[in-house]
Amino acid sequence: MANIDSANQQAVERMMDARPILKGVAPARDVIPGMKPNLLLHAGPPIEWERMSGPLRGAVIGALIFEGLAKNEKDATSLVEKGEVDFAPCHHHSTVGPMAGVTSASMMVYILENETHGNKAFSNLNEGYGKVLRYGAFSDEVIAKLKWMNEKMGPILAKAIEASGGIDIRALLSESLHMGDEGHNRNKAGSIIYTAKLAPWIAKVTDDSALESEILKALGENALSVLNPVMACCKAMADSAHGVEGSTMVTTMARNGTDFGMRVSGLGYEWFTAPAEIPDGLFFPSFTSADANPDIGDSTITETAGIGAFAMAAAPAIVTFISGTPQDAINASLEMYEITVAEHKHFTIPQLDFRGTPTGIDIRKVVELGIPPRVNTGIAHKEAGVGQVGAGLVRPPMKIFEDAVRAYAKKYKL
Amino acid sequence: MANIDSANQQAVERMMDARPILKGVAPARDVIPGMKPNLLLHAGPPIEWERMSGPLRGAVIGALIFEGLAKNEKDATSLVEKGEVDFAPCHHHSTVGPMAGVTSASMMVYILENETHGNKAFSNLNEGYGKVLRYGAFSDEVIAKLKWMNEKMGPILAKAIEASGGIDIRALLSESLHMGDEGHNRNKAGSIIYTAKLAPWIAKVTDDSALESEILKALGENALSVLNPVMACCKAMADSAHGVEGSTMVTTMARNGTDFGMRVSGLGYEWFTAPAEIPDGLFFPSFTSADANPDIGDSTITETAGIGAFAMAAAPAIVTFISGTPQDAINASLEMYEITVAEHKHFTIPQLDFRGTPTGIDIRKVVELGIPPRVNTGIAHKEAGVGQVGAGLVRPPMKIFEDAVRAYAKKYKL
Repeated sequence: MANIDSANQQAVERMMDARPILKGVAPARDVIPGMKPNLLLHAGPPIEWERMSGPLRGAVIGALIFEGLAKNEKDATSLVEKGEVDFAPCHHHSTVGPMAGVTSASMMVYILENETHGNKAFSNLNEGYGKVLRYGAFSDEVIAKLKWMNEKMGPILAKAIEASGGIDIRALLSESLHMGDEGHNRNKAGSIIYTAKLAPWIAKVTDDSALESEILKALGENALSVLNPVMACCKAMADSAHGVEGSTMVTTMARNGTDFGMRVSGLGYEWFTAPAEIPDGLFFPSFTSADANPDIGDSTITETAGIGAFAMAAAPAIVTFISGTPQDAINASLEMYEITVAEHKHFTIPQLDFRGTPTGIDIRKVVELGIPPRVNTGIAHKEAGVGQVGAGLVRPPMKIFEDAVRAYAKKYKL
Repeated sequence: MANIDSANQQAVERMMDARPILKGVAPARDVIPGMKPNLLLHAGPPIEWERMSGPLRGAVIGALIFEGLAKNEKDATSLVEKGEVDFAPCHHHSTVGPMAGVTSASMMVYILENETHGNKAFSNLNEGYGKVLRYGAFSDEVIAKLKWMNEKMGPILAKAIEASGGIDIRALLSESLHMGDEGHNRNKAGSIIYTAKLAPWIAKVTDDSALESEILKALGENALSVLNPVMACCKAMADSAHGVEGSTMVTTMARNGTDFGMRVSGLGYEWFTAPAEIPDGLFFPSFTSADANPDIGDSTITETAGIGAFAMAAAPAIVTFISGTPQDAINASLEMYEITVAEHKHFTIPQLDFRGTPTGIDIRKVVELGIPPRVNTGIAHKEAGVGQVGAGLVRPPMKIFEDAVRAYAKKYKL
């Protein structure tokens, strides 16, 4: 046990010491290792087309139309069924994406570099609200928005971020947790900090006032604009903690809309999976939990790195969006201390007297105490093309932790 | 008593229903009623030169140099001593200014219009940190910064705010209180919301990328950039509640660095004054409370309107700046419910289950319970030209409430 504890301590120190800097924006094909034209990355553990849920299928169709590989839904489906499209988890390519997480070769992605350990991580640009690819919508307006982001906003962001010398996303998160964000479902403060930090550089790198104004509006009015750099930041942190021999600390939690998948620092690249649950929460008018798709998205990388639902106590105002009371928010963080390895050095919660957020999930504690991690999440409609229907809370299935503990016992001959 | 209660209810409803919109920026002489070239407005109740404290004198000297009425300190002092400069409280001209609050005819000021009741209020532009006029500094760099703000930033802000159609500062405050601000000493969230809201309009109204970048940096990096519009917003709210016959509700609290002054809704324009106290708090390295000037500034208009120290529970992170613990912050708000008339309709505190902030100080309750209002504040050096030395907490002297209760009894023959 002493060895396991010290392995976990080493893993969590690496995760907390990681300092990912947002260094740029570039087309996925130019920067993501192994990216190629007919490859689509998706959220969660590996999955084949046949088992994909509605929103993931919708996002696949949209991405193929966006890439010009298909003209419409029928085209796209037949292309996939002919086996001409390859699929892989974002996580297999140092990448994370919210909800469906579909990332294709031409898409502009954020580049995060971990200055402490040297690894990189990537995430696509955030589309904002309404009909969006990440919730499985693929209508003409969705594709048009993606093209505007890719052709107009992306290149300016690339220049502005380069001119700025890089943005320290860990520092941004430390600040936003003191401003009522938890970094997963609530990124309101982070997104305007991000906008305000970039604005002077955006002004510098463009002379097109109208475009500049549009970009600043798109960033500033989207309370999730920083979610994707934040997720890539957490991915870079978690990846740097992966592969510590003997560690029982979780380094990946991700859902593809069908399965919830997990990986553990000391257990190599094996995925432990089980069917994803339907989140509990608040639904938009005219929708109910009968419309909800099972849990989907790589955004659980935030909880993996010690924020999101783990930092709920810092974000009492979030309860108006995902249900519950401010006291529930405090209790959520307090409960997560039970199953984690450390209190974060850099992420603190003013409401808990500046205690560090609960960081580094220990699969042993989860199984022993019967407390699975908490996850905040958006809720997608179960059919392709509809979009978001609510937001709420979910827990991973207990089975994956039990399987992982068994695998650990086998590997380490306990 | 029933009559007093209903008068107070009427006053507080007016204060809460006021909806001040930031409509523009213009030179003081063009918009502030009664403004003229040799008139300097200052914070707090009326005061003559002889009794002015160091920081207020320093700001007077700086403003005379800024206006071109004096070349240097000696010039300025002799001009004042010859009686060629008139002084009046900002509050006598629908205006408020942080710290020394000195406002001269050429200075650009924010224009707030209360859409509910039609009254206007004004405040100068925020200078940021370091050596600044509002803390009594008047060196060349201070004057140069003021000129840049007036000649470069001010006209662009004027155009951008006009193009935006106006910014609802009450709505901005409602949002920023859910993001860890209390609206007086902590305006971190509000200032970046303000920056992010203005940025697209600033981009639209200027083609000078370098200037635009400088302005966006000045707004975004100054965590107090929105303080002045917030103060003018509170002033417009409080003014709309003034003059309700029979009301014992406070509508002005303000300090000139020598005296603390208060006015009451049902007691006309009489100032109740007593010597200002030295604030308690955290001092910058190498300074102690021996360096501190007594309490100064019109920013107590925030507490008057139900935010600032009254909303402390919403801003647990502020304790790192002004001392205390997050529990003290909760207790501060809870205590203020004891002496106030209402819970605010629009300003709510997530940490207290979205309870409205304590709003509308009742002089009867203050005297009866022996609980003077709490005030958050910056602390100025007592000598002219030095600047800020810390930040902390202060209470108005009890005497002004006792005097006001006596004056009330006399006026209303109780």
